[in-house]
Amino acid sequence: MNTWPVPAPDLPADVHPALAATARAAARAYGGARGEFTRAQLREEIADGADGTPTMRVDAIVEDAIAEAARGAGANLLSEEAGFLDHGSAVTLVIDPVDGSANAATGVPLSCFAGALVVDDQPVEALTVWFDTGRAWHARVGEPTPFRTTGRKALKGANVCLLRPKRGTEEAWLRVSNQADRVRVLCTTCLETMLVAEGAVDAFADPGSDTHRLMDLIAALVTVPAAGGVLLDLHGRPLTFDLDLTRRWSGIAAASPELADELVATILG
Amino acid sequence: MNTWPVPAPDLPADVHPALAATARAAARAYGGARGEFTRAQLREEIADGADGTPTMRVDAIVEDAIAEAARGAGANLLSEEAGFLDHGSAVTLVIDPVDGSANAATGVPLSCFAGALVVDDQPVEALTVWFDTGRAWHARVGEPTPFRTTGRKALKGANVCLLRPKRGTEEAWLRVSNQADRVRVLCTTCLETMLVAEGAVDAFADPGSDTHRLMDLIAALVTVPAAGGVLLDLHGRPLTFDLDLTRRWSGIAAASPELADELVATILG
Repeated sequence: MNTWPVPAPDLPADVHPALAATARAAARAYGGARGEFTRAQLREEIADGADGTPTMRVDAIVEDAIAEAARGAGANLLSEEAGFLDHGSAVTLVIDPVDGSANAATGVPLSCFAGALVVDDQPVEALTVWFDTGRAWHARVGEPTPFRTTGRKALKGANVCLLRPKRGTEEAWLRVSNQADRVRVLCTTCLETMLVAEGAVDAFADPGSDTHRLMDLIAALVTVPAAGGVLLDLHGRPLTFDLDLTRRWSGIAAASPELADELVATILG
Repeated sequence: MNTWPVPAPDLPADVHPALAATARAAARAYGGARGEFTRAQLREEIADGADGTPTMRVDAIVEDAIAEAARGAGANLLSEEAGFLDHGSAVTLVIDPVDGSANAATGVPLSCFAGALVVDDQPVEALTVWFDTGRAWHARVGEPTPFRTTGRKALKGANVCLLRPKRGTEEAWLRVSNQADRVRVLCTTCLETMLVAEGAVDAFADPGSDTHRLMDLIAALVTVPAAGGVLLDLHGRPLTFDLDLTRRWSGIAAASPELADELVATILG
């Protein structure tokens, strides 16, 4: 069992109440689950989610808490396991309840809540909370964030996070790794894109595996540009709000447009 | 600048006073350095260490604080930048002031203090503290720790941390990655070996790059076996206390002897 505590999120005062309520509910639920279940139990696949992937117990527990908080806040919810919960609002929360589920289940302290507030079909605000520390990254579309990307333009010498190499992407993975100064694989896209936003690393990339769903990237779609960087898809497909959770993207977050373009060129070879 | 706080280490009551004092001094110094210097300044290479590698400013600041604390505690110190500081004691602290220096400098929240207490030439006790959370792992030779490895025996399906692939180790790296269920690259050996000890991942391996010095592995050498696992070198070279800091090992930490053997066989191909 993982007995380390999960602190309450350290949120800025001006976070939208629906985002704040769901983030707090998520941290409470994850902390409770860690205290109640063993690692093997948290990892157990207990259902198939609306996005077509298996649902671990830890995902289900946290999503249930989020669904209740969203209902209480009067917002619709689009989430990976439950799909679309229509509460008759113009406001929809698009949330990854536990990004880095495998980390969260086994006890690797790298997992987070990530969510965006969508009005009609436009994302307007985002919040990401790292569960193990309570650190939060908050952004609004069109408003600069206090944290900034590094602004780095060149891949050579860059600090890069990568999705782990999956079958068929190994060569592209090594091309990026060999150009960069240092690669890391943290297995939590939402947290890794926030490290790009705050300037701790220069970029994050999925080297072509088409792994990401809307809720894996929507917080970064709001936050990384607000911090001076860019978020795009390897193949130029626009990231748009959509209730169809079978859609996938190969997300790239970079400190500058130039670095994003060089990553795309390097991955495509 | 990285403005996140560095909490005081959360230490068990029975840690040896010299280890506790140096760990506390390290956390204080790192927290101070983060508040005072930019990321670029923390990363700047300002000297060459006794181990033959460049010393970043962040390493130098934390090591100075550790040296003063070791002197105050009356213990000798063997550290990567300063080398051996002989204070005329039978007790020597072998310390990596900042493991994961590149993370610590740029603000990736994965870096730690790691140290062992050596009496004459025998390691007897170890302490690792993750700077960004204050979490501590403490162990004594011959005494079981409260945290335990997973006990996993097979690589297929395992959760593995790897050193990043360096030139010449790419093929071995991919062989391990393709067998494992999931790989991670956190760029902090001392923290990654503690995740093996506490059962969050099944193993950590350097796939043949001979990167590790004594202070990168000595805390794991005490802690991982006390938690039920094994620590060994890829080529079977014994890990022994030695003042010669040019020695290198390819460390492997695993939840069981069987998993360690399979990792060795997979890496050697």
